[in-house]
Amino acid sequence: MFGSTGSVGANALDVLGEHKKDFRVQGLCTCRNVGKLAQQVSRFKPQSVCVVDETKVTRLRGMIPNTVRIFSGRSGLLEFAAQNADIAFMAISGIACLEPLLVSLQFSRCVALANKESLVVAGKLVRRQAKLHNTLLLPVDSEINALFQLLKTVKKDEINRVHITASGGALYACTPAQLRKVKAKQVLAHPTWRMGRRITVDSATLVNKGFEVIETHEFFDIDYDRINIIVHRESLMHAAIELNDGTFFSCFYEPDMRIPIEYAFCYPRRNGKIRKKGIFNGKKVQNCTFGPVDFKKFPLLKLVLAAAKKGDNALTVLNASDEVAVDSFLKERIAFTDLYPILEYVYTHSPHRKISTLDEVIYWDTWARNKTKEYIEKKCC
Amino acid sequence: MFGSTGSVGANALDVLGEHKKDFRVQGLCTCRNVGKLAQQVSRFKPQSVCVVDETKVTRLRGMIPNTVRIFSGRSGLLEFAAQNADIAFMAISGIACLEPLLVSLQFSRCVALANKESLVVAGKLVRRQAKLHNTLLLPVDSEINALFQLLKTVKKDEINRVHITASGGALYACTPAQLRKVKAKQVLAHPTWRMGRRITVDSATLVNKGFEVIETHEFFDIDYDRINIIVHRESLMHAAIELNDGTFFSCFYEPDMRIPIEYAFCYPRRNGKIRKKGIFNGKKVQNCTFGPVDFKKFPLLKLVLAAAKKGDNALTVLNASDEVAVDSFLKERIAFTDLYPILEYVYTHSPHRKISTLDEVIYWDTWARNKTKEYIEKKCC
Repeated sequence: MFGSTGSVGANALDVLGEHKKDFRVQGLCTCRNVGKLAQQVSRFKPQSVCVVDETKVTRLRGMIPNTVRIFSGRSGLLEFAAQNADIAFMAISGIACLEPLLVSLQFSRCVALANKESLVVAGKLVRRQAKLHNTLLLPVDSEINALFQLLKTVKKDEINRVHITASGGALYACTPAQLRKVKAKQVLAHPTWRMGRRITVDSATLVNKGFEVIETHEFFDIDYDRINIIVHRESLMHAAIELNDGTFFSCFYEPDMRIPIEYAFCYPRRNGKIRKKGIFNGKKVQNCTFGPVDFKKFPLLKLVLAAAKKGDNALTVLNASDEVAVDSFLKERIAFTDLYPILEYVYTHSPHRKISTLDEVIYWDTWARNKTKEYIEKKCC
Repeated sequence: MFGSTGSVGANALDVLGEHKKDFRVQGLCTCRNVGKLAQQVSRFKPQSVCVVDETKVTRLRGMIPNTVRIFSGRSGLLEFAAQNADIAFMAISGIACLEPLLVSLQFSRCVALANKESLVVAGKLVRRQAKLHNTLLLPVDSEINALFQLLKTVKKDEINRVHITASGGALYACTPAQLRKVKAKQVLAHPTWRMGRRITVDSATLVNKGFEVIETHEFFDIDYDRINIIVHRESLMHAAIELNDGTFFSCFYEPDMRIPIEYAFCYPRRNGKIRKKGIFNGKKVQNCTFGPVDFKKFPLLKLVLAAAKKGDNALTVLNASDEVAVDSFLKERIAFTDLYPILEYVYTHSPHRKISTLDEVIYWDTWARNKTKEYIEKKCC
């Protein structure tokens, strides 16, 4: 379990807590949250743990039994990933997930992938590695997970288009004037999902939805012009497939990450043990809305999709730039409406280069981070 | 094609018109609308036709080529049904469909069933006949068709419950006072579907939805307590399956009968040739509502479901009584709010008897028709 102390990781352990007879937690890994990790060790009794931030190792050592092996640092993380496992659950956030993912794909029978960025910046690399080692790659992200489930129900030639839904995030109803003044706190109040901070901001800009379009393309090999986004404020429908006769199969579940996580763990069986309210089971009328995306209102989404079609280093650049810019917004150094001009600047000023190795990904990631920081320093501070 | 001049039959021929290369229309059958039948003969050039009302044969003879063989009368209908065919499309309305259906199940490779009543009054008989002759029975009714499609996507033990949707019909928002004064014309203005007259009234009382619950039970062998009705005014979602992990697969299509008809014709392939607008493809936001049924407001639905659980002759009685009472309502001899007390009277005054043959079905059908007519004569006129 990679990233066990984050939002998705904690949900994944919650699911495993309900399936104690079926699964044994082999290892837990955190970046630096050793307090939470120690609690998880005490509950799930893994054989090994990994803490990426080496300065935290001494503290952790005193908190867990001696019998638990500790890996640490970047190289420790890769050693940790090189242990054989039935399922590697990848919930490390950001591009930091890519390297351990590539190692896990070599040593695990199946990888449940909750990280978006690795597919966004290096989809081809990840797929090649999965194929090479015959490792099953399962999507945990709700929209991609829902599509995975739906695509298994029909033959590929029956499909016209696929749809993923977007809640629109916390600022969907804001006017341009309101957007200029919006504070991090407001953006972080997502109407339907509880998630990490960056992804919540990326939900408000729809950058996150652009990333999911890319995930869809990479996971299922579907052309971009056959992937559509439906704005659905209520986050009950996560994906749909439109068939050649006008039929539309869709997948709903409550906006609770434990549902796709449980699906990934139990796959190919379906073995529900998490108690859910269920969809459309209440006594009240549930209202759902389905509408098109307003690209004018979400220029960053347009930018991400343009980068996706361009391919190569464009997405690596945009992802890195977005991470840096969102961080600046969360620290209140820039305004919400600065995000677009910053990313647009870095994107248009990056040379177009092919990417085929991990080193190249890391090079362009670093390049874009520096370029973004520079630009923010110069323009906004 | 049985019932080719009715609403569903005409839609089915419309579908076949788009698939001219794939299908040849072998025979067409009407009850009495020989004018429309002759037009269909001229377009689809069948080898034989059937007109159930013998008084219309002479007129028909002058309207179609000599080479077309004409069957007529009740016995002619059964001879017509006894011709071998790849697909028998059963769109005769009411219980009159039952006998030719049982014959077609013997002589056709596949039967596409658009008639509800035959499953409602004689589900066991129909299923036994299909099994005996190894004939594929395909549902055309939109909700049952949607369920058929969905149930093929998962394993049976993954399913918790199935849902069919109800638009609520034309009078859903009426108050009890308004219902007392409602005229046939208002009831016939269904908000989403264009259908025959009786089924449109049955939609407003939700008797039709009760029949679909029975169809679901009979077609898929699902216990009544695992079949739920969702009120969904917009008629875009037709059915859904709720899985054991909280996932909910649903099937949407525009409220256009040609979609499930085309599915049945092309099965097991999916080959869409009818041009559709598609679901959630417009520029506007589409609103959908999903809520529970108010059984107090729809006492006839409650009565139908009680009869379904009772089994045997109860449904035959209720179906026949409903057909007679609805006919009286359409002729403005009784009020809309008289339907429930009439059906309730006939139902509670009918003896409970087992049904295992066609003769027994016909006996109780006739008994209930007479009893209903008697009661209407005595009480309402």
